[in-house]
Amino acid sequence: MKNIKLTIEYDGKRYLGWQRLGNSEKTIQGKIEQIITQMTGEKIEIVGSGRTDGGTHAKGQVANFKTNSPLSTQEMIEFFNRYLPKDIVVKKAEEVSERFHARYNAVGKRYSYHVWNNPIPSAFERQYSFHHPQQLDLDKMNQACQKLIGTHDFIGFSALKKTKKSTVRTINELTIHQEGSLLQFTFVGDGFLHKMVRIIVGTLLEIGAGRLAPTAIDDVFNHKLREHAGETAPAHGLFLEEVFYKSQK
Amino acid sequence: MKNIKLTIEYDGKRYLGWQRLGNSEKTIQGKIEQIITQMTGEKIEIVGSGRTDGGTHAKGQVANFKTNSPLSTQEMIEFFNRYLPKDIVVKKAEEVSERFHARYNAVGKRYSYHVWNNPIPSAFERQYSFHHPQQLDLDKMNQACQKLIGTHDFIGFSALKKTKKSTVRTINELTIHQEGSLLQFTFVGDGFLHKMVRIIVGTLLEIGAGRLAPTAIDDVFNHKLREHAGETAPAHGLFLEEVFYKSQK
Repeated sequence: MKNIKLTIEYDGKRYLGWQRLGNSEKTIQGKIEQIITQMTGEKIEIVGSGRTDGGTHAKGQVANFKTNSPLSTQEMIEFFNRYLPKDIVVKKAEEVSERFHARYNAVGKRYSYHVWNNPIPSAFERQYSFHHPQQLDLDKMNQACQKLIGTHDFIGFSALKKTKKSTVRTINELTIHQEGSLLQFTFVGDGFLHKMVRIIVGTLLEIGAGRLAPTAIDDVFNHKLREHAGETAPAHGLFLEEVFYKSQK
Repeated sequence: MKNIKLTIEYDGKRYLGWQRLGNSEKTIQGKIEQIITQMTGEKIEIVGSGRTDGGTHAKGQVANFKTNSPLSTQEMIEFFNRYLPKDIVVKKAEEVSERFHARYNAVGKRYSYHVWNNPIPSAFERQYSFHHPQQLDLDKMNQACQKLIGTHDFIGFSALKKTKKSTVRTINELTIHQEGSLLQFTFVGDGFLHKMVRIIVGTLLEIGAGRLAPTAIDDVFNHKLREHAGETAPAHGLFLEEVFYKSQK
């Protein structure tokens, strides 16, 4: 049996998110599994590196599946991109070791979040960035970023209720890049809790707008309470950019 | 009476083009006139710098209209962007001399055309660039660009039938900029005939793919025949970037 690793790009606008639900029509996983069944005749479950929320985009989601198909990976790519809806693209298909597991073997992820920071909205950015019309104090936001980098219990920056699993994560990189009216937040870390990136962005925006002080970050860490953080920034500004694996194949 | 100059951005995907037709619902001009009527109570016709085809985008279309409205231009911008569909944005509104006419006074335009040149399609560029999977010979395309720059009768590069109006135009600048898989064609000229940019791009792509020689450009100029040029590139890769006026106000 072959184990196939896929690198997938999608415009999440029309979908309920990565994870297949009852109705496979509206999820990325469901769409891809449908095409695999068409392609191989096999009924297969694919393993994603993790879920993405409804409306969230991806430039480098990773998934794997096992198949007896005689097709080459090049033929698979062509089949996927012919039959998938145009807002889902398989960028790569590679045969990997049978032990490769897209979720268990992921050692880190890179996300980006885009904010359109201009009183005038953008007809083109509207679907891929959050419109924040008020001016932002980037210095304060960068101060807050420094507090977030490192290893912390991020439960207060997540949509999780109490859980037995560890909510300690490490953010290795958190930067804000400004290009004209577009702010691009980049997050690199070993893993991210449910809605963690969006809640952190929402909190940073409230700090930039002066509604919260940079010390709000410390409050969330100290009290571990979601209420101390800012609003959750909307899903359509978020991109899963890359999933990292040890250089095993 | 005030004369108001608007600078307008739109994602042309959902529209039949700039020019109002019977059914105002589906054109940019129709949508904007509808909002002006809501805003001022006046039934007004706006003058655009020129038409854009169905599906074509704009980052800097210019139009003007005359009104007795007491609203400030700032209030107008806010009204427009509150009530227009989100894929049409008024970026600027300025009070200009009563003689200003968006079409007659335009002295030049800048267009861009975007091509996604990669065997793998893009989930994000698909709506804003033409997917051309085959490799292109940029040197040959640049040779052809040199032949197009200058003053010529461009009738063979237009969708026009015989016409009494002059079809001589001047292209001042025609460049191809490559950034990763994205090719951006930039056209600056004193005016462009119907579908001229898209037919030139289609011809340049056939030259790049080796189906036509760079001398095909000379053939079109010599014979003045549409048949000697390439296919019309699709509308969704085209952006009206800027309209130039003499610095009158």
